[in-house]
Amino acid sequence: MKKLWALALASRASSRAHTVGPASHPDHSRHTGRRIMLPDDANVAGNVHGGTILKMIEEAGAIISTRHCNSKHRESCVAALARVERTDFLSPMNIGEVAHVSAEITYTSKHSVEVQVTVTSENIITGVKKVTNKATLWYVPLSLSNVERVLEVPPLVYVRKDQEVEGRKRYEAQKLERMETTWKTSDTIQPVLNTDRQTKEPYTIGYSQSSLIHLLGPSDCSLQGFVHGGVTMKLMDEVAGIVAARHCKTNIVTASVDAINFHKKIKKGCVITISGRLTFTSNKSMEIEVLVDADPIVDHSAERFRAASAFFTYVSLSKDGKTLPVPPLLVETEEEKKRFEEGKARYLQMKAKRQAQLDAIPH
Amino acid sequence: MKKLWALALASRASSRAHTVGPASHPDHSRHTGRRIMLPDDANVAGNVHGGTILKMIEEAGAIISTRHCNSKHRESCVAALARVERTDFLSPMNIGEVAHVSAEITYTSKHSVEVQVTVTSENIITGVKKVTNKATLWYVPLSLSNVERVLEVPPLVYVRKDQEVEGRKRYEAQKLERMETTWKTSDTIQPVLNTDRQTKEPYTIGYSQSSLIHLLGPSDCSLQGFVHGGVTMKLMDEVAGIVAARHCKTNIVTASVDAINFHKKIKKGCVITISGRLTFTSNKSMEIEVLVDADPIVDHSAERFRAASAFFTYVSLSKDGKTLPVPPLLVETEEEKKRFEEGKARYLQMKAKRQAQLDAIPH
Amino acid sequence: MKKLWALALASRASSRAHTVGPASHPDHSRHTGRRIMLPDDANVAGNVHGGTILKMIEEAGAIISTRHCNSKHRESCVAALARVERTDFLSPMNIGEVAHVSAEITYTSKHSVEVQVTVTSENIITGVKKVTNKATLWYVPLSLSNVERVLEVPPLVYVRKDQEVEGRKRYEAQKLERMETTWKTSDTIQPVLNTDRQTKEPYTIGYSQSSLIHLLGPSDCSLQGFVHGGVTMKLMDEVAGIVAARHCKTNIVTASVDAINFHKKIKKGCVITISGRLTFTSNKSMEIEVLVDADPIVDHSAERFRAASAFFTYVSLSKDGKTLPVPPLLVETEEEKKRFEEGKARYLQMKAKRQAQLDAIPH
Repeated sequence: MKKLWALALASRASSRAHTVGPASHPDHSRHTGRRIMLPDDANVAGNVHGGTILKMIEEAGAIISTRHCNSKHRESCVAALARVERTDFLSPMNIGEVAHVSAEITYTSKHSVEVQVTVTSENIITGVKKVTNKATLWYVPLSLSNVERVLEVPPLVYVRKDQEVEGRKRYEAQKLERMETTWKTSDTIQPVLNTDRQTKEPYTIGYSQSSLIHLLGPSDCSLQGFVHGGVTMKLMDEVAGIVAARHCKTNIVTASVDAINFHKKIKKGCVITISGRLTFTSNKSMEIEVLVDADPIVDHSAERFRAASAFFTYVSLSKDGKTLPVPPLLVETEEEKKRFEEGKARYLQMKAKRQAQLDAIPH
Repeated sequence: MKKLWALALASRASSRAHTVGPASHPDHSRHTGRRIMLPDDANVAGNVHGGTILKMIEEAGAIISTRHCNSKHRESCVAALARVERTDFLSPMNIGEVAHVSAEITYTSKHSVEVQVTVTSENIITGVKKVTNKATLWYVPLSLSNVERVLEVPPLVYVRKDQEVEGRKRYEAQKLERMETTWKTSDTIQPVLNTDRQTKEPYTIGYSQSSLIHLLGPSDCSLQGFVHGGVTMKLMDEVAGIVAARHCKTNIVTASVDAINFHKKIKKGCVITISGRLTFTSNKSMEIEVLVDADPIVDHSAERFRAASAFFTYVSLSKDGKTLPVPPLLVETEEEKKRFEEGKARYLQMKAKRQAQLDAIPH
Repeated sequence: MKKLWALALASRASSRAHTVGPASHPDHSRHTGRRIMLPDDANVAGNVHGGTILKMIEEAGAIISTRHCNSKHRESCVAALARVERTDFLSPMNIGEVAHVSAEITYTSKHSVEVQVTVTSENIITGVKKVTNKATLWYVPLSLSNVERVLEVPPLVYVRKDQEVEGRKRYEAQKLERMETTWKTSDTIQPVLNTDRQTKEPYTIGYSQSSLIHLLGPSDCSLQGFVHGGVTMKLMDEVAGIVAARHCKTNIVTASVDAINFHKKIKKGCVITISGRLTFTSNKSMEIEVLVDADPIVDHSAERFRAASAFFTYVSLSKDGKTLPVPPLLVETEEEKKRFEEGKARYLQMKAKRQAQLDAIPH
């Protein structure tokens, strides 16, 4: 293994054409990072927030895709997050463990880069390692001289033809889904009211609904002055977690996040409002819809806009880490019923998909 | 090596009686801290947030009063913030400057400690130093073995008799004011609705109203598991600043904060909701009421409670740092009118008080 | 009100000549800072990371030397860290304690400033204070109008002649050492391979080798756009700590850091890779070599470069804080053997030096 890496790294600065596949991984199309999980990264039970993991994933993706897009010595650019595919949290990560984030460029279209990221938790005392999640992200290169202009991506060199074919399929699939989402988004703009919980019935949607505002500061943003996708995802997970905890009054963890599309860049100095509400509960899970709206408070010409939206799925945990039953959601209005049914459909579809994957494993 | 240090430290802590006044300042009743202001501490125009300064002030006060309350080798305790007196921000602090925080114990009652803090900004390149604000804080010692029990405070030794007399006057005055506030707080519990700004008329109260939620993590709290007063004040200022910026759509800075009372300890793991709404505007200032509610989401037995409330005053600044006129607030309901009149009364009272102070300066 | 402050501050900065020594310490050549240690500053056992302490030390040094270099009202400048002398961690610091950092300028050459810093831990509840470490740092003033240009340092005024003589000796010694290090650095640039630990034998160098990457954001950097030396040192300590914990699978703490030279400024927006590998183990200590490489990912003209390197020494601790034996390192290749022998030489040299110091203490 060591020899392979030595070989792969020796050729670094020479060829700038990037290849993908098991045979050869030059430095530029791969990236690994590590960080110890601190108390602030976790809830009171010591489980690291899903949002912290999403933020690390996005940082790795942004580094590797920015590096790739600048590799041809053409116009300088920075890679901005356009989309994250659905992500499952397979195993919890705890305080004191080391998180390993390993990212690889797996496909490039004319204007976008696909990055696949794997996160592993390592207990450095016991030596136990676990894959906590895998994610796929899409980035778009923006010109440094004018961040409104999307540049061309240097093509990736594939080791095997089928890698390119499979990549193109994923590219087309996400393109289709994004178009659908854009349509849905403009359709569903709805204020989430932060009503007085004391007058609300427990287990209703209004009871657990929550929202937060955040003024985007320098550390939230790239040097080019727009917010990192990972920062937004961390705040989305924070709101979703509070909604989930308010509903079931136990310790909760992120189980999965639906695909998130980032429709529009959010600039430094904007205030973002992140609102979350329960849409669906099964026996053992809660689905929370999270909406992100950006408000360019100082810039008179700019209008408030919907910047992103996603569904987060949470589970409730006992003190010894076992999943607990979730109190059923009380739906009151016709609209709440409709959203509940849509959530149920997503839940059943995902369940069927997982069963199919399990069945596909040869016994 | 260790022997050497032991020697150097042997002379520590001989006298345990603390005195106050220019004649003698033993280590224990004084405290100074310094920190460089980072981009994250400031708004886009480079002005450090009032909340960052309040947080530094409170940390200095907590250190010095905890140290004092443990100086008699009786039961171990930790000092918790009970009240901050009205604070004016006299001069802006900027990124890259060094903030000097100097704290001194100026009075002790049987169960409370008064700390006076002065913050100075220093531009280490030009050498210019300015006092940015002065604050007075009251702390109460809580037993480490049972944080519900308030302990007795070791008495301060005064250099001059009048220091004690003046201190007692301040103590009695704040006691009276706190009782009044408690009454007002229970009276005015009102949800601040996070309405959809797009359907709201600009310059109304609803248009700029904002709220945020925050899950209290380990870094927000003392080792005894309750939130530092400074963390709460920083979040309060954050919300107030967003309300102010939404109203006048310019760069804004904190001009002053009214007295804040901390009615009840907020525990780690709680979710706090911080809501802000405009109550009054003069030609050049805005008054924002901020309410803090704590929600012990995991603890079934505990109820949501009002933890603190305060009035923040903001001014609007042009790009070159001059104060700008503030758009008048559009009040709609009877209650909004009533709150506006109360704000106006506070504004006029403060204006008269300042004029009296100016007149008192000998020419 | 403002008139009052103007009066109070009028007496500021009269004399601009700085003196050193016990007789007189004007404000400008001294600096003290304080901060409470938070959960995020420490490992799971509550011991504050050596890296957090190094970061505080560097911040104090940067403040005091920037202030000194601007004291003559000539060209404005900012002090950049060039070198930190070997530092021993004499006593652990814990969460909840207050760290006191006190810095003093002790020597100036034509183009550099020597700062000596002492860190003390204070338990504000028990009142116990301990010196945790002493450090010596060298800063160089860079012109604000062109950060590539080194300016002249205003000369320090010494109280006693021998202070200057001793300072010059330290200056010459570090100059010599830096030249040697520069040579060594260019010689030993070698990638630290990130091999798969699961296929590696425990106690080998490859088994515990680690690296992390970090994208330098605004809060990591000075206003002039290059990273603070303290930020780099904190990350170096983080990697070294992971290597040490992986090797001995216990709780570990930093015992000392060898002299670190900062060869070249690292700019905002760079990605830095920090790699660590074990070089030597004695019965009770581990030596870890840490290399820092900077990668200007967006800037085409710039090349990846070695920015710093250092040796960290760690010890292994039991749950009650006693030092534990360290598992011997398995060296495999000829090069590993050579590095082990070099590490052993450094270890024996340091041991002899300490013994000489102990012998010098009068009984």
